[in-house]
Amino acid sequence: MRILVQKFGGSSVADLECMKKVRAKVLSALGEGYKVIVVLSARYGQTNKLLEMAYQWSDEPDPAELDVLLTTGEQESVALFAMLLRDAGVNARSVLGHQLPVRTDDTYGCARILSIDDEYLRRGLERYDVLVMAGFQGCTEDKRLTTLGRGGSDTSAVAVAAALGDVECHIYTDVNGVYTTDPRLCPEARKVDRISYDEMLEMASMGAKVLQIRSVEFAKKYKVPVRVRSTFSDDPGTLVTQEDEMMEAVLVSGIAYDRDQVRVTLCGIPDQIGTSAAIFGPLAEGGILVDMIVQKASREGITDMTFTVSRKDLKRALAIVDKVRPAIGCREVEHDLNVAKVSVIGVGMRNHSGVAARAFAALARAGVNILMISTSEIKISCLIEEKLVDLAVNTLHEEFDLQLSHTK
Amino acid sequence: MRILVQKFGGSSVADLECMKKVRAKVLSALGEGYKVIVVLSARYGQTNKLLEMAYQWSDEPDPAELDVLLTTGEQESVALFAMLLRDAGVNARSVLGHQLPVRTDDTYGCARILSIDDEYLRRGLERYDVLVMAGFQGCTEDKRLTTLGRGGSDTSAVAVAAALGDVECHIYTDVNGVYTTDPRLCPEARKVDRISYDEMLEMASMGAKVLQIRSVEFAKKYKVPVRVRSTFSDDPGTLVTQEDEMMEAVLVSGIAYDRDQVRVTLCGIPDQIGTSAAIFGPLAEGGILVDMIVQKASREGITDMTFTVSRKDLKRALAIVDKVRPAIGCREVEHDLNVAKVSVIGVGMRNHSGVAARAFAALARAGVNILMISTSEIKISCLIEEKLVDLAVNTLHEEFDLQLSHTK
Repeated sequence: MRILVQKFGGSSVADLECMKKVRAKVLSALGEGYKVIVVLSARYGQTNKLLEMAYQWSDEPDPAELDVLLTTGEQESVALFAMLLRDAGVNARSVLGHQLPVRTDDTYGCARILSIDDEYLRRGLERYDVLVMAGFQGCTEDKRLTTLGRGGSDTSAVAVAAALGDVECHIYTDVNGVYTTDPRLCPEARKVDRISYDEMLEMASMGAKVLQIRSVEFAKKYKVPVRVRSTFSDDPGTLVTQEDEMMEAVLVSGIAYDRDQVRVTLCGIPDQIGTSAAIFGPLAEGGILVDMIVQKASREGITDMTFTVSRKDLKRALAIVDKVRPAIGCREVEHDLNVAKVSVIGVGMRNHSGVAARAFAALARAGVNILMISTSEIKISCLIEEKLVDLAVNTLHEEFDLQLSHTK
Repeated sequence: MRILVQKFGGSSVADLECMKKVRAKVLSALGEGYKVIVVLSARYGQTNKLLEMAYQWSDEPDPAELDVLLTTGEQESVALFAMLLRDAGVNARSVLGHQLPVRTDDTYGCARILSIDDEYLRRGLERYDVLVMAGFQGCTEDKRLTTLGRGGSDTSAVAVAAALGDVECHIYTDVNGVYTTDPRLCPEARKVDRISYDEMLEMASMGAKVLQIRSVEFAKKYKVPVRVRSTFSDDPGTLVTQEDEMMEAVLVSGIAYDRDQVRVTLCGIPDQIGTSAAIFGPLAEGGILVDMIVQKASREGITDMTFTVSRKDLKRALAIVDKVRPAIGCREVEHDLNVAKVSVIGVGMRNHSGVAARAFAALARAGVNILMISTSEIKISCLIEEKLVDLAVNTLHEEFDLQLSHTK
């Protein structure tokens, strides 16, 4: 039995017309001899509608009950889509998270999958040609419903593929696959045929919102090959898979950017042991993800500490910093919203030097001033002025010849 | 631990304001020292909205998938209501049919409860003060979701009370209880304090839509005392319970009526053995519930056969009759929509004669012509012209002194 997992997001199942397009994709997979597990999200707008209702009912809705409410969204999609398949004579049924069950921890609203019982699915696939599975949802040991957080349906799909083993997983979206950079910014952007899990993780976390990060982590952990492709074309898309030699031969695979950055600077801090811990400890406890960190070289025992956070966390970050300010003797706190991050990503960097130098030189030639730098094994990120993002992305894209296909 | 089951219908939980009224009822029960199981229906209009959507998606939605869709209605209510209770500091959580589970057969859309596991509820009641349970829903052995049919939440509530044993069950509605007849037709109508299961069954089946018939059958089978009362008052309502001597002392407890009747007459049939079977066999197989049946005294070997059916079944009934017509030699088929049924109901009839005669005489004095008659142990029904329903109901109500309270 060849099994294919197909996942479709909220905009792909928004209404009856959209669902008919999705049905065509499923029928085509059936035609190729697959048994299909279709993982669906809630219809576009439905989750927001339910959230709005919850906040009318309560200023602070109980997280467990919120999950009971939100899971109705996917339940609705799968019921409607299963009806549509059955109308076309397909032997299909819907499957809900608690039926397998998809067992999760009890972090309501953002639960982690602990295990998936594949027995119910396997029995289902013996009797049915298509199982229409509700994404985004699971349940605890005590049978309470949970959700996996925004975009969690990607994770559901990958997790189901992992549970069944040796199964292809296609994630359908509204683009043809993963691009070397954002085509809206750079007309030269090119779809890549293959990308490694690690590169995809860097791309995803940088706001190239094709796949939910956790689903990629899950795919990497269980070695599930994931194909990202479009609901609206027949393009084979991009295969997200294990790193191989071909990928390593390519120096850089993509340029990502992230406008959701604020730079916070603590000015005039006496340079003492424990200052960093005094600042970043409380921020971490406050659940604030700090991205880049730079400490200015100390002059006469006084230094500046600069870091970036997501814009939504700014207010809370400033409040926390304000509390620790007296203890560390910080003179002043500044922040700057007009910044953005551009990143050069590629597993090839592991074995090639000089990528960072080339990137910095190219940006300098283009007149882009670098405000902060951070690097990882497969990524170089530069904080720049936000208005220069377009220029920087195009400059780097050209510098590393990304308009040309390397994987033939 | 004193446990109270409170059931609220769709109009009681229609919106936030309504739910706050329901919350007050629950808080009041908590104040009296009860642990409470609140059984809720879908919010008013929600089930119809979901049905409409299903019929946009499919002309004939798959019944199993329709149930997956419909159960989201109650899931939504219980999540929202549990949020509201928790906001008021009540230690509450929602409970869904499949969590217990409420085990049913697989007659989707109208499933029958096979068993309720009380273990999950008992454990829940140890940890929580209120369990907000989704009515109307259950699941099959294979974990597929089912619904109990319109008004099934009443049955859910009674079934939960039966499973826990020795538990009071209050069904909240928009009237103060069960009345001797419809107050809209008869201003003299009086609320009764107690009524037997059998009387309630007759009242309910006659369109006095206070309780779903199946919930009364369930209550009777498991001897669950059910109190019907209003969400909008503190009236103790009507207790539906086992027959006792006090009830038998009362000759008649209520007058019911049913406008959903059509009279079908097969004229000029040769009076032969097997004719009745030839007519009513196929009707039963067609799922048509025939109510009253009268065969005219045969004259010269020719007779008429008259019966009544629900208006929604008329078309199908006529089609079936048309098929059997040649075989039984029926000359002509007539039908009459301008009819209605009035019934006199009371367990007291079991031990008292003359009730039927009094009823016929009273109707005759009022000028109401009786078209057909059917009787049971505790009921006398007369088919009359529809336009005379008001007159007939008021006449019978007065004849049996129902405006006066018998149970002091």
